[in-house]
Amino acid sequence: MAVRKSPSHTPDHVEGVNPVLEVLSGPREVYEVYVASQSLEPSAQLRKVIEKANAAGVPVKHVPRQRIESMARTAAPQGVIAAVAPYRYWDLPDILRHLEKVERPLLLALDGVEDPQNLGALLRVADAAGVHAVIAPGRRSAGISAAVAKASAGAVEHIAVIRVSSLAAAIDRIKTAEFWVVGAEADEGVPYYEVDMTVPLVIVLGGEGRGLSRLVRERCDVLASLPMKGVVTSLNVSAAGAVLLFEAVRQRKDLT
Amino acid sequence: MAVRKSPSHTPDHVEGVNPVLEVLSGPREVYEVYVASQSLEPSAQLRKVIEKANAAGVPVKHVPRQRIESMARTAAPQGVIAAVAPYRYWDLPDILRHLEKVERPLLLALDGVEDPQNLGALLRVADAAGVHAVIAPGRRSAGISAAVAKASAGAVEHIAVIRVSSLAAAIDRIKTAEFWVVGAEADEGVPYYEVDMTVPLVIVLGGEGRGLSRLVRERCDVLASLPMKGVVTSLNVSAAGAVLLFEAVRQRKDLT
Repeated sequence: MAVRKSPSHTPDHVEGVNPVLEVLSGPREVYEVYVASQSLEPSAQLRKVIEKANAAGVPVKHVPRQRIESMARTAAPQGVIAAVAPYRYWDLPDILRHLEKVERPLLLALDGVEDPQNLGALLRVADAAGVHAVIAPGRRSAGISAAVAKASAGAVEHIAVIRVSSLAAAIDRIKTAEFWVVGAEADEGVPYYEVDMTVPLVIVLGGEGRGLSRLVRERCDVLASLPMKGVVTSLNVSAAGAVLLFEAVRQRKDLT
Repeated sequence: MAVRKSPSHTPDHVEGVNPVLEVLSGPREVYEVYVASQSLEPSAQLRKVIEKANAAGVPVKHVPRQRIESMARTAAPQGVIAAVAPYRYWDLPDILRHLEKVERPLLLALDGVEDPQNLGALLRVADAAGVHAVIAPGRRSAGISAAVAKASAGAVEHIAVIRVSSLAAAIDRIKTAEFWVVGAEADEGVPYYEVDMTVPLVIVLGGEGRGLSRLVRERCDVLASLPMKGVVTSLNVSAAGAVLLFEAVRQRKDLT
């Protein structure tokens, strides 16, 4: 688990209206919120941020818009930046213990997703699909950054992300808890809608351009493919994740 | 329909290995291809681009990598830029005439998608799902740019994009051809998997943050919602598109 840095270190950033609103309602410590000072009244959206920060007892600093732009680590901070504690990763054994009480747990594992946009998009769709936790290796993978928080529309603050040193070993551990491991392959395996997703499930997606690594692939109980009807031979990893996770939602619709 | 500019005007760009490979195999005119010259042998990927350009009779210019970087209109041109004719939009009546011979046509309409990343991602997923054409208004929407071509992984070269002045009027026209119009709404309507997608279908997605406009919404035969099980209240438009289009693929799997 990550060691929480003290505020005397360079804090992490969360940027943009929705991501800052979400970090203010999540478990992460927020040190302060920087808001672009306006010649006119602040916009309704910025007022909402200020009110929420006030309610949470977080200091709000009004600074010139140019200062926001120069501090920003993402392209469009929308006039608001929160200085926050680093994301605290969750622990696999803790999560598995918690999921013993859940009827049909759903996990998402990412085998080397390196692009922060894709990681953020996947966290957003995982949140929407009711995924209980997302597992990713610490190496050759994007970590939780301002860009990830932005691309997730703030979902990162509410979903459990587990960082592991070996995804293959983590999958072995998850299999002892009787999960079914479904690996996504562009061009191999059974069509994804023929895979039973009503059981305790971990969906494994490969990294951009590389797909699943051999060690991870060998551990999958089934490989699921997405039929490709066009010229391009694969989906973007976040689109593939959306299709597979919502297929699980569909199959589980009448189950509790 | 767009007027094709002559090469004496600033040409459009297609950047990156896969997008350039795709434009070389699509209908767009390619004026020339710029490849980063290497001190060592060119990579296997760049060699593939050079071979394909040679086969297509397109001139290849070797230029210093810094020149590629400074010419580029996207963040990661991967050492290759094609100077190309502007994308030629398709014509709605032509497409509808062509689709009279197709058993179960599938169209995607975009009601104000402004982000080139989202448009590119949607074109890629539309290609993968076998969509026959994508319809988007000319105003308040992203056009086909180097960024769109990149985000589509080159799919833009192979899918018909129709630009219309009024999406509402275009939908009226499409309805006369007896299509079923399904609008995506985050929080309203019937669950998407309960919508019959085996009929001639146009799926309509709203723009980022705004959703469907009133005029378009009124023309939908049914509003389809995606159940949201988490904290964030909507999916990104490209993720929603992936889920809806692949639901059509799933429902049509046993049909020809």
